[in-house]
Amino acid sequence: MRVDRRLAGFAAALSCLISASALADELRGTGDLGLVVERASGRINIIETTNPSVLHTVEGLGDLSHASAVFSPDGRYAYLFGRDGGLSKVDMLTGRLVERVMQAGNAIGGAISQDGTLIAVSNYDPGGVRVFDAETLAPVADIPAIYGDGAGRSKVVGLVDAPDQRFVFSLYDAGEIWVADFADPGDPQITRFADIGRQPYDGLITPDGRHYLAGLFGEDGIALLDLWDLDAGVRRILDGYGHGEDPLPVYKMPHLEGWASAGDVLFLPAVGRHEVLVVDRANWREVGRIAVRGQPVFAVARPDGRQVWVNFAHPDNDSVQIIDVPSREIIHTVEPGEAALHMEFTPRGGQVWISARDSNVVRVYDTRTFEPVATLPMETPSGIFLTARAHRIGL
Amino acid sequence: MRVDRRLAGFAAALSCLISASALADELRGTGDLGLVVERASGRINIIETTNPSVLHTVEGLGDLSHASAVFSPDGRYAYLFGRDGGLSKVDMLTGRLVERVMQAGNAIGGAISQDGTLIAVSNYDPGGVRVFDAETLAPVADIPAIYGDGAGRSKVVGLVDAPDQRFVFSLYDAGEIWVADFADPGDPQITRFADIGRQPYDGLITPDGRHYLAGLFGEDGIALLDLWDLDAGVRRILDGYGHGEDPLPVYKMPHLEGWASAGDVLFLPAVGRHEVLVVDRANWREVGRIAVRGQPVFAVARPDGRQVWVNFAHPDNDSVQIIDVPSREIIHTVEPGEAALHMEFTPRGGQVWISARDSNVVRVYDTRTFEPVATLPMETPSGIFLTARAHRIGL
Repeated sequence: MRVDRRLAGFAAALSCLISASALADELRGTGDLGLVVERASGRINIIETTNPSVLHTVEGLGDLSHASAVFSPDGRYAYLFGRDGGLSKVDMLTGRLVERVMQAGNAIGGAISQDGTLIAVSNYDPGGVRVFDAETLAPVADIPAIYGDGAGRSKVVGLVDAPDQRFVFSLYDAGEIWVADFADPGDPQITRFADIGRQPYDGLITPDGRHYLAGLFGEDGIALLDLWDLDAGVRRILDGYGHGEDPLPVYKMPHLEGWASAGDVLFLPAVGRHEVLVVDRANWREVGRIAVRGQPVFAVARPDGRQVWVNFAHPDNDSVQIIDVPSREIIHTVEPGEAALHMEFTPRGGQVWISARDSNVVRVYDTRTFEPVATLPMETPSGIFLTARAHRIGL
Repeated sequence: MRVDRRLAGFAAALSCLISASALADELRGTGDLGLVVERASGRINIIETTNPSVLHTVEGLGDLSHASAVFSPDGRYAYLFGRDGGLSKVDMLTGRLVERVMQAGNAIGGAISQDGTLIAVSNYDPGGVRVFDAETLAPVADIPAIYGDGAGRSKVVGLVDAPDQRFVFSLYDAGEIWVADFADPGDPQITRFADIGRQPYDGLITPDGRHYLAGLFGEDGIALLDLWDLDAGVRRILDGYGHGEDPLPVYKMPHLEGWASAGDVLFLPAVGRHEVLVVDRANWREVGRIAVRGQPVFAVARPDGRQVWVNFAHPDNDSVQIIDVPSREIIHTVEPGEAALHMEFTPRGGQVWISARDSNVVRVYDTRTFEPVATLPMETPSGIFLTARAHRIGL
């Protein structure tokens, strides 16, 4: 009996030491973390960029096609928006699924409020925006996208956060842009802009949080709202931008998140053409076109704006081209693998992470030498999201 | 005896449970951390912004007048540059001083390389830049600021990091700007620009990492280097900027870090005048002046560029004025306390933290309502640095 007790005490002490040590190992910063969506398997891999590697794999996240993520201001929690309406909160440090709610039948993306307390999700079905407490995922507000005679609800797309605790989004079926002010979360104030153009299919906010742009599927051009001057209303820019007069079949409408802001100009994927358009930010006019290998999907600027990396729709989606911004010339082409879907720069631009879905790898490149510095095997990787997004407006 | 053993086992288990629990409490993100320099006492307070509060106090950091800090890419470690040449590495999670070296006799500021592996310090005595391994603080490179006939060494000021693993700095006595390329840390490549103007006293790099500017103490004007086009050399801008023709006594030369980039313009403190100058970023010409309460020291833009907050030299250093960027009008004045020295915005701009040295408080304001949301008592607080700087170029 005496030996047993002594052993029991020792075992208890040992087991505690082990768990204390495991916790000490987990004590780490969150600034160099990120996640990669494994699309087909409903999983994410939590990665670190300092020593490119996978730290955790998190399962049970539902349908992750077109999934995206935002992060809490402290960088600890990821909020993952699934296609099936699932909203998942994941602890980036422990790799645990902390909370999960099925908040709609069909959803597309979301945003976190400026202060980090609210998570908004844009839903196709039922059409609207639902807002949740970031801590508990308890419901806070429901904004049905009712329009016209009030009988139907519109799909909602292009949801972003904006400064001063606002969310901005577009109503696909209604052709409207709504600005929701959550300064008082219990009583959000909605400002509606109607007749902005047919079928807005995606939106973006400029990195300074000032201009909201909605791409139009039903006609050419872009709807622009200056959030510093709501009284001026929505105006139309880039009249030729779209697929109306497109001589080529469009394999994929470009994401507006893929517009690159570099210096005084924007680089944006032309719809259906093998071109990247250059637009002057001061007047929103096209000032140039750059010939590229295929139909561009994303054009993403290195954080310093010196380079723009461009990926392509099928059948050119095995390569990524790099535009030198001052000369506006293609200076390099890399081939990360089959179906290079998504690119994410580290926040100061030294690395870019590229997912090659059909080659089942994520490749990491040095943006100065264009050499691959790491290759991580993953199953059908798609979106890549780094915690540094926690500190950016609209991401 | 049997009882004693049982108790001992229980006590061991309990003590381990407590330490495991203490570690679990420390498991947290680093994205919402920061530090405040307590100037007179050689201490820093580690703070969090989510619930404004002090988490740790770290002592024994030497002379912290004009101290500044940079952060590791993961947000876990702060590197603190003291006036006495001390370089200290602090663990933001545990509040422990991890490493400290006295690397020179008299120093002013430093920078962290794009990839986070190198820490550079700019020294007055001996004049030059010393570079250290970010992990261990072991010396990596020494760049003496030798100039002219090689007999003397210049004080070095305005040291910043730049994209592609470079550091840029100015030689006060030599009137030179040097660009050091650390792509190969063992063999840094230095490019020197001479005759840039007399006595550069401070420098900054624009947030995109493209333009390096050095303020001149010995003459009016600003030296500008376009890092995208080193062949073009250094040119002079803002010929009238300085204190040469100054009708007022200059209480304090404004810091160049206090230039606010907002949209297409820069806001910069006029030297000696009660004005903030507005400069067009496209051509570096002055396009306006805004009258303010005193001699401005810092003009800092809210991260979305919608507001610029301005503090002042003695005797107006009890107030901070807020400029509305589109109208260029003062829309509000706050009074944080005596000697409001430094302002730091949370990365998405919802809060600003202001140190009021002589009132021994740090006040946190909501930037939408201008209401104080927290007041933290501290001893002679000065510089405030948030970990979000880890993800910015040149900070």
